[in-house]
This record gives sequence, structure tokens and C-alpha cells, in this order.
Amino acid sequence: MAAAAATVPSPATSFPSTTRKATVLSLRVSRRFKVAASAAASPGPDPSPAFKSVTAFAPATVANLGPGFDFLGCAVADASLSLGDTVTATLDPSLPPGTVAIAGITSPSRPHLADRLSRDPLRNCAGIAAAAALQALGVRSHAVSLRLAKGLPLGSGLGSSAASAAAAAKAVDALFGSLLYRDDLVLAGLESEKAVSGFHADNIAPAILGGFVLVRSYEPFHLMPLPCPPALRLHFVLVTPDFEAPTSKMRAALPKHVAIKHHVRNSSQAAALVAAVLQGDAGVIGSAMSSDGIVEPTRAPLIPGMVAVKAAALEAGALGCTISGAGPTAVAVIEGAEKGEEIARRMVDAFLSVGKLKATATIAQLDRAGARVISTSSLE
Amino acid sequence: MAAAAATVPSPATSFPSTTRKATVLSLRVSRRFKVAASAAASPGPDPSPAFKSVTAFAPATVANLGPGFDFLGCAVADASLSLGDTVTATLDPSLPPGTVAIAGITSPSRPHLADRLSRDPLRNCAGIAAAAALQALGVRSHAVSLRLAKGLPLGSGLGSSAASAAAAAKAVDALFGSLLYRDDLVLAGLESEKAVSGFHADNIAPAILGGFVLVRSYEPFHLMPLPCPPALRLHFVLVTPDFEAPTSKMRAALPKHVAIKHHVRNSSQAAALVAAVLQGDAGVIGSAMSSDGIVEPTRAPLIPGMVAVKAAALEAGALGCTISGAGPTAVAVIEGAEKGEEIARRMVDAFLSVGKLKATATIAQLDRAGARVISTSSLE
Repeated sequence: MAAAAATVPSPATSFPSTTRKATVLSLRVSRRFKVAASAAASPGPDPSPAFKSVTAFAPATVANLGPGFDFLGCAVADASLSLGDTVTATLDPSLPPGTVAIAGITSPSRPHLADRLSRDPLRNCAGIAAAAALQALGVRSHAVSLRLAKGLPLGSGLGSSAASAAAAAKAVDALFGSLLYRDDLVLAGLESEKAVSGFHADNIAPAILGGFVLVRSYEPFHLMPLPCPPALRLHFVLVTPDFEAPTSKMRAALPKHVAIKHHVRNSSQAAALVAAVLQGDAGVIGSAMSSDGIVEPTRAPLIPGMVAVKAAALEAGALGCTISGAGPTAVAVIEGAEKGEEIARRMVDAFLSVGKLKATATIAQLDRAGARVISTSSLE
Repeated sequence: MAAAAATVPSPATSFPSTTRKATVLSLRVSRRFKVAASAAASPGPDPSPAFKSVTAFAPATVANLGPGFDFLGCAVADASLSLGDTVTATLDPSLPPGTVAIAGITSPSRPHLADRLSRDPLRNCAGIAAAAALQALGVRSHAVSLRLAKGLPLGSGLGSSAASAAAAAKAVDALFGSLLYRDDLVLAGLESEKAVSGFHADNIAPAILGGFVLVRSYEPFHLMPLPCPPALRLHFVLVTPDFEAPTSKMRAALPKHVAIKHHVRNSSQAAALVAAVLQGDAGVIGSAMSSDGIVEPTRAPLIPGMVAVKAAALEAGALGCTISGAGPTAVAVIEGAEKGEEIARRMVDAFLSVGKLKATATIAQLDRAGARVISTSSLE
């Protein structure tokens, strides 16, 4: 750990700190944490570590879900947990107390991806979320180094940054005995999202909580988990083309205003989607997801083949299909996994034949657990 | 009955008919009924009466509920059933088969109101809905006369026209053995709403079904009842000022376009409202109802005192407050009836002191039953 820590002396994420940059970050973090019931606001007890090391996994997430633009999302995972990111948080006595360092980044299935991610904890999703979690916990006497294993591609619309942030916040919290409330963890992750991909919680909230989550409001901060009946066997066909669709460009494509009748139509479909999730109606979940008349029509043309991919998915029997997050991943929803492979094949074919893009498909389930600890190392 | 029927020979609502006007109405009705599983589309069996006479009640309704503008509504009723309309449908052999006549209109608590309503069944909410129900049933050999008892004021934002239509459709259906599906009844009532107050189902759907109803879409026609847990003791303080707020004027006040951020905010609050109804969270129901940032801000200033009335309701402990339908009634929501009288008094005071309007208050409960038969007379 010493070598990694040496390359990242970064008092910038420490708490307390005397550098100007750190003060600014600290103030910003404090403002966000004013609604949290944790130790962030005032210097409470300095918590003791519960483990030497904790490894946490956080799943991929599908934000927007069509008419739920900017306020709905759900977590998805495959059986092998390859669809998500893993972070190991380890106590590191070689670092200045209260700080975070990035000790290593790996990306087993995409060798070059790890090189694209910053080792500066202030510029790394996991680092920022870990620092915010440390601050929320009120940790002043210990420091943490992180090892990040990226399972998700970047900029694919599957909540890659949120998965790193969620796993980091969860691992750090567990390292100190899991003292934070659910909302504190989401707010820690939101600090990271804000810095990296924009101030919206529709990825980070389901990445932490699992299942479907409604981000009702930010002031006050109010998340509503939307539990769906256990019998609902919701699956997602996720097809990611080899195409970069930066969130900023996709955001710029959004209409500034919408006609009142489109507002009413999209709102009623979003409300129907929420009701269908709570009532376990896969058919309505699918058709509501497919119904966005505001955002999808402006973004789909920017992703070559997307319109044809959606048509192919529906024709092959998907209950619904839309763009995952800001894209370019297309997400189709099905009940049960039976039709998954055929639908995936048709969607991949459509990306290739119409969009001239290679694409890879994964069949995932709704992930009801969200960020979770997958292993721990005891204190000596 | 003969006298009333003589004044309304009206083949215009008959089925089948040879007049041009009737053909137009019939075609329009048929189009609406194409999704109904009833006898409307093809001439099925001509149903036999089950009773000589049926009396049905339908409750008042609160449409919009803040951010649910044009797609959410709920039914409300007080213990004495004064907050709704009652229709008696009677077989009338003196009328041409397949027709409807208005035999009488009373308004016990508002003597002059009955005079303002048309006796022409084509221009009367109850008449139009009854004719549409007869057609949906496929009744060709019998005719029906209606007696309407108005419990609701007109143009108050409490779904007065929908209550008449719902009670009429329900009474006619029951007269012939309750053959129609729930959606057929709503579509019959929607014919009436379309003619009288606009093509929207957010009053007629809850007036028929009871409880909270989400009007998801019209093509295809899809209603989603939103059952709330039995333990939820939702009450409504309804305060109606002595002020005319015609739906057309209130509609004209609507913005044509909304900013995307307002769209997102309102949609997320509407979705939260739906989730809270299904989960039985009165606090979130109230605060979500109070949160409309699109329609209420444009309409409230047109109702003298409304802004102060809302503030008074919230200050007195209401969980939320908004305009009921297109107004001018203000609706506050509370859990349990305990605070109802105090909140009602404060709201009435605010209408008087700020709006210079006299107002009357009613404390109602969520009406979970919707339109129902309250008495029948057997066939001889």
C-alpha cells in the first residue's frame, strides 16, 4: 500500500484539511450532507474500524426507464456479478489519517479501460465517494486505500460511475461497522456523480438500494424505494454497441421545453410504470418503459441503429425497450429469461445491419440487493 | 312518465336510428367503444331487464390532485351521501324502444340548480351516459326514463357532471342485470364528459370505480385503479367558495409549454403520489398533492384567496392542499377526521378575509366503492 499512497499524498480529500481546494470540497460536501442524520455535520465520535479490509460489489443500473427521465432507475445484475464494479477498501496506516488513496485499478475484461481512469482520488468516482463516506462517518484517525475492479464499460449508459461510487461508499461504511443510513450512502455517492457525470441520483440510488428507486426530490432529499412482488421475474436484455455517447452530448440533445400534452402523457406513463412496479405487472412495466415521447425521440436518432433495435426487440417479443440512461445501451424488458437470447440476437443484428455497429448483449435480472459486501478481512 | 317522455321524443339517442344526427352520435360512440368487450360493436342479444327500476349513487371526485393533472383522480363521499348525485333509471314502455328520457331533476339543497340543467337527454350528462350505456348493452326493445337528484353544485371542481353520468350509467347497467365491464361504464360516462366538460376521464373513472384511479392512456383505453391499504384513513376537507370558475377559462390559463426541469419535477411528484397511494403513506400523498409547479401556479391566482387558503390549510396541519379539478374548490388532505373542522374553519376564513368570498366546507372520506346501486324495484 505504501507505494500507492506515496503517489497520492492528496490531502485534498482529507478531513479536516488546511488546503484551499480541500476546504472548498469540504464545504460542498457539508452542504449536501445537511439532510443526513449521520456524523457529517458535527464532529461526533471517531468510529473504530470493524475490519482490516472490506470488498463490496455494486450493480449496473438502468436510469430513466423511458418516461422516468431523471427520476427513476433500477439495478440489474447477472448471476456471475460481472455486471457491476467491485471495490476493496483497506485500512492503510501509511496514509495521513482521514485520507483516501487509490491503490490500484483493474479491468479484467477490458485491459485498456483501467488506464483511462484517474488514480487521483479527487478525480476518481470511487475515491470521491469513499472520501465522502469517510467524512459522513466522521473518521479522523484512519485512512483508506482502495482497489477498484471495473466490471462495467465506461460511458455505456449502465451507470458505470455510479457502480464504482456505490461499491466504494458501501465498502468504506462496512469497514467502520456500517454506521451510515441508506440515504447517507446515496449522498456520498451523489458527491461523486456530481463531480463526474452530473447531479442526478437515478443511477446511484438504485446502485446502493437495489431494485427500482424513485428519486422524488433533492431539497429535501427524498428517495422512494419501489419494492416489486417477489414473484415478478423481471429480466433485462442489455445491448451495448461499440459507440461513444457522452452524457454531455446526450444532455445537449434534450428539448428545453415540452408541450403540456406531452408532459401529461409522459407523466401518466411514468406514474403507470411506478404503479406497475409496485403491483408486479411486467406487461405494463414494459409498455410504459417503451412510451417516452419526450427524451427518447431526441436521443434515439443520435445512436446509429437504435430505432431499428427497439423495433427488433419488440417484434421478437420484448415487453418494452428504450435507451438505458443516456445510452448507447439499449434495454429491453422481458418476464423470465426464456426469450432473452433470441431477443438479444435480434437486437445485436439490428445494431449491425442498420447502425453498422458491433454490439454485445447481456441478459440480466433485476438486482434487488444493491451494493453489498462480498468479503471481509478481520482485524489482527 | 308519459308526460316527460312526450316532451322528449328524441330519436337522437335511440339505437338503431335513422336520423342523421343520431347516426353521427352513434358512430362516435361506436369508435369509443371499440375497445370494450361488450355488446356495443355488434348486435348481440337484446338483454332483458332485471328490475323495473334502479337507483344508483355516484360520488364526488377530486381530479388532478396537483401534479396528476389530467390523469389522476379520486372519489370522495361523506357519510350521508350528500356529496354525490343519484339517478333512478326506470323502464318506460311509453317511450320508443332504445331511447332515454329525462323524467325529472331535483336538487334538494340548491332549489334553483335543477332549473339550470337541460331536460334534453342529448344535452344532459345523465341522459348522454344512459344512452351510451344502453347502446353498450345492446338494448333495442326497451326504453328508460331517468330521475336525477343533484347533490353536487355545478362548476365547483368536484366532478358534478361525472357524478351524474356515473350514476346514470350504473343505474342503466344494473337495470339490465349489470352486464357491462367496468371500462364500458367509464366509456359510457366519458361520452357524457366529452360533450359537457371535455374529453378527460379523471373524474368519471374514479366516479365509477371509486378510490384513486390513474388514467394511463386513451388509445388504447387503459385505467389503472390504485388500491390503497385499508388502514389508510384518508380524509379530505373540501372548501367551495361562492365563485364561478368555468373549466374553459381555467383550461385557457394553462401554459402551452413547460420547461423540461418543471416537467421532470412534476412527473416525479406525480409518480411519488401514485407510490404513496399504493403504499398508504398519507404524508407523501399530501405533500405530493401540494407540489404542483405547473398548473396550480397559473390557476390559483384566478380564484380569489386560493393562495391564502392553501397556506391556512397547511398551517392548520393539513398534509397537503391544492385546487380540486379546475376549481374553485380547495381540497386539503388529512389522515383521520380529527383536525378536519379546525382546518375547514381556517380555510373558510381565508376565503372570506383574503378572497372576499363566502365558502362552504365539507369533510369527506376517500370513497372506495364508486358508483353503486342503492335501491331497486322488482319487475311485477
